[in-house]
Amino acid sequence: MPPRDANPPDRALTRRDLLAGAAGVAGAAAIASLPALGAAQQASVPAAPPPVVPADPTKVVGTPTAAVGTRSPFVRPTRVPTGDIQGFSLTPHGDLTGTITPADLHFERHHAGVPLIDPARHTLTVHGKVARPMVFSMDDLRRFPQVTRTYFLECSGNGRAAFRDPKPDLTPQRVAGLLSNTEWTGVPLHALLEEVGMTGDATWMLAEGGDACMLTRSIPVAKAMDDALLVWAQNGEPLRPENGFPLRLLLPGWEGNSNVKWLRRLELGTAPWMTRWETSKYTDPLLGQKARQFSFDMDAKSMITSPCVPQAITKGWRPVSGLAWTGRGRITRVEVSVDGGSSWHDAALHEPVLSKAVTRFSWMWHWQGKSALLLSRATDETGYVQPTRTELTTARGPGTDYHFNQIVGWQVDPSGQLTYHGGR
Amino acid sequence: MPPRDANPPDRALTRRDLLAGAAGVAGAAAIASLPALGAAQQASVPAAPPPVVPADPTKVVGTPTAAVGTRSPFVRPTRVPTGDIQGFSLTPHGDLTGTITPADLHFERHHAGVPLIDPARHTLTVHGKVARPMVFSMDDLRRFPQVTRTYFLECSGNGRAAFRDPKPDLTPQRVAGLLSNTEWTGVPLHALLEEVGMTGDATWMLAEGGDACMLTRSIPVAKAMDDALLVWAQNGEPLRPENGFPLRLLLPGWEGNSNVKWLRRLELGTAPWMTRWETSKYTDPLLGQKARQFSFDMDAKSMITSPCVPQAITKGWRPVSGLAWTGRGRITRVEVSVDGGSSWHDAALHEPVLSKAVTRFSWMWHWQGKSALLLSRATDETGYVQPTRTELTTARGPGTDYHFNQIVGWQVDPSGQLTYHGGR
Repeated sequence: MPPRDANPPDRALTRRDLLAGAAGVAGAAAIASLPALGAAQQASVPAAPPPVVPADPTKVVGTPTAAVGTRSPFVRPTRVPTGDIQGFSLTPHGDLTGTITPADLHFERHHAGVPLIDPARHTLTVHGKVARPMVFSMDDLRRFPQVTRTYFLECSGNGRAAFRDPKPDLTPQRVAGLLSNTEWTGVPLHALLEEVGMTGDATWMLAEGGDACMLTRSIPVAKAMDDALLVWAQNGEPLRPENGFPLRLLLPGWEGNSNVKWLRRLELGTAPWMTRWETSKYTDPLLGQKARQFSFDMDAKSMITSPCVPQAITKGWRPVSGLAWTGRGRITRVEVSVDGGSSWHDAALHEPVLSKAVTRFSWMWHWQGKSALLLSRATDETGYVQPTRTELTTARGPGTDYHFNQIVGWQVDPSGQLTYHGGR
Repeated sequence: MPPRDANPPDRALTRRDLLAGAAGVAGAAAIASLPALGAAQQASVPAAPPPVVPADPTKVVGTPTAAVGTRSPFVRPTRVPTGDIQGFSLTPHGDLTGTITPADLHFERHHAGVPLIDPARHTLTVHGKVARPMVFSMDDLRRFPQVTRTYFLECSGNGRAAFRDPKPDLTPQRVAGLLSNTEWTGVPLHALLEEVGMTGDATWMLAEGGDACMLTRSIPVAKAMDDALLVWAQNGEPLRPENGFPLRLLLPGWEGNSNVKWLRRLELGTAPWMTRWETSKYTDPLLGQKARQFSFDMDAKSMITSPCVPQAITKGWRPVSGLAWTGRGRITRVEVSVDGGSSWHDAALHEPVLSKAVTRFSWMWHWQGKSALLLSRATDETGYVQPTRTELTTARGPGTDYHFNQIVGWQVDPSGQLTYHGGR
């Protein structure tokens, strides 16, 4: 079974709970005693497990069909949530395989909580430097041509904590859990902008969210007219509330916060608005008292997700598998090292390798019981190669707080125990 | 918002519930009073909605981050379950977009309920015509090379009820809800068979499930050595219990029941075993007192999922969008007709078009308020064209009960109301 995260939420189900019927009943009682909690908080309490695990499942009739499925009580991956309204929750990459992030495990990052929005009353206003200002209902938007595309989404702060404090017990969830990968469906933004008729001098677009902080970002019109989408669905189903239900902006390959959730307004203009989200936050100090602003592109990055902390491995063959992604198109190469970067091996890239989506890679390793340092290194179609920690900090200086993408990995000791290694 | 199914489960949340805070509290109490139900049944009771929908969501702080997300109370797509241990539940295609089926909405079909299996105790035995009979634990299987692939899964009985009784209020869920599409991860079966060393005379393989009916099917070795997988994950997460947790056989493009769930045994042999699942069931009577046995391949098929029953449409532009799939490779063409098949229009196929996975198609339609009959017709890479109802019944006769794939669609009356049309 997949490894459990080293830092499970307090109320996660343990194996002991499962094997003791009484604990299951106690779990049900705990759910009943929490009527005042919101739906999102209740979700962190696992459903009560069936009280008896049969010795031979073929001798016991199973459970009936159901309107909505539930996970096996033996594997209930969960996000690590901060549990507050200005916080985040982290995708448990060490518990997952493949490339798609289940919608209820997609990372969260919001600054004023998740708003409750009635889609029948939600509208999108498009105005400013346009010939025909318009207000669109959700039904109006569904009349436009629709596309379905798989793209990753990554918070520009993904990896910050691991960079600042690379503790040995960090998991893939703690190191890079502000990354997720989703099949999105919606309307190409250029179709909407053609409908309202942008004026010739429109070069920037303001996107405003409908949450309590009304997060706003200035977006170059060139991106809006390129591959930007207005999406209402993720992985086939309507957007989840924490991902912008009923409507979010999707800017493939660009930092998460610019993909404005609960989207309610687009204003076309001739210069960026210099909102607090692009001045006091999300601007990166560099060397020489300079700064990067509007650093939207997410750089090529990779992470080995199996094996990983908190696993211990045994001798023999096993796949070294992980994820690679770049905001600048397709991943063209991932290399794996087991000797801390002295030598590298080309990993297999699993098809389909999609632009601005995560790519699963794997490489077969025969571990013979000696110390090893597992690293992965991604290259994208622009020729960009994922940097070392030294290369990254030399280029950007010590003041930057975002866009960490240095090579990291897992130290294996002779007993097979893994610990996090933050790169060199 | 997506259309609701015409036949929602009894306890589905209504809009009235949402707007009345008191109903939400009553819902929470109902969950607390059901400790004796299994987890799967509890899942059909929606979580209590937040009691108050704010008039302006930007004026109210939202809900905090959470370990696992929950759907918006405004859109909670559900399967239609038979609710028994020999039944099925249906994917709500009319409520979904894109191509991926959320794991908890993947269709179910089982014959003795969903077993509760401890993955730490589950094993796969491989024996019979092999040089080295072996028993594999789940951990053993994870040492083999792994692949991630997106494939549809379709019950061979998908569409039976709609074929027999084409009622006007049938939804996409009722017509073709025994189809789902998933990103699977596991080990190629050929790697396992090479490990045990099949003898030269092995031509068939028996696959046995670990549920209470121990469903068994005989599979040609040629398929096992081609693209068959042993999978433990769907859409990134561990398999759901109703989809075979912890291990299922995955035979891309082949009828659902042959993709044996809760897989515990593979036996290699020289002839099919003629189990009851391939003699009394899943064999198709044809004309002239003949029958098709081992009719594994699923034929090319398509279905328009938007617009659909129970929607009513209004005049103007809208996408006609749906799904197409074939067990014989890639979909190469989907045509849409709005005049009942007198004329056809090529629909756009959304990339990536993957082999033996569903393909999303769309075509922009300008409805002017007249009666229309919307149909879709798929063609696959073998040149096979989805047949009419007449062509299908002429070829197979009236006795067959499986593998219906005739052209079907939606009748639109001048008021815009849609009804199901079972084809001609």
